Amino acid sequence: MPEHISIDDLKKVEIRAGEILSAEKIEGSEKLLKLKVSFGFSIETGKAEERQVLSGISKYFSDPQTLVGKRVAFITNLAPRMMMGLESQAMILAAGGDGDEPFSLFETTAAPGSRAH
Amino acid sequence: MPEHISIDDLKKVEIRAGEILSAEKIEGSEKLLKLKVSFGFSIETGKAEERQVLSGISKYFSDPQTLVGKRVAFITNLAPRMMMGLESQAMILAAGGDGDEPFSLFETTAAPGSRAH
Repeated sequence: MPEHISIDDLKKVEIRAGEILSAEKIEGSEKLLKLKVSFGFSIETGKAEERQVLSGISKYFSDPQTLVGKRVAFITNLAPRMMMGLESQAMILAAGGDGDEPFSLFETTAAPGSRAH
Repeated sequence: MPEHISIDDLKKVEIRAGEILSAEKIEGSEKLLKLKVSFGFSIETGKAEERQVLSGISKYFSDPQTLVGKRVAFITNLAPRMMMGLESQAMILAAGGDGDEPFSLFETTAAPGSRAH
């Protein structure tokens, strides 16, 4: 179990609500789904903020379309990283999924882009 | 906006599913609710892990009973802190709630105690 952390440790981590706009399997990968996710309007740019997210959750969603329209929690300030030649620009939060454990995302009705507090 | 963080920064923060067992207003406080939350069975102790959580979300729940039975995301490794003379042993994650923004928790169907990954 992790040690106790401070509020400052927690504040470093940006958790935001994102709305899944599209979800599809990636050719050549059994694990990854490619999501397009809305984080609302960026205050900095005034533009809609959409990000590409790669996530190894394919086996939990036989039909990725069931993800479209869901608003769920993402970690939005990890450095972008490449997977299968594609850039992942956030990390979807999930729990469970080992063995018989139920797998689940963290759903919210907060506005896309809202930061968890 | 926070700087980019590393996976190690993220791993410091323990986010877990908890099931709300009870929720009540606190006499003398307009802001705080007192929750009893199950985090399943502790691997370390073999016992049911229940924690008391104080949270300033009272104004969003005119009937706190509507929270009972919900499984939502908590930060579970902040140092415990005292509020109104009561110890809060985790922090409930929420988003929105400023002005007209919708307020929401992050709901999950993962087993109580499951750690987000």
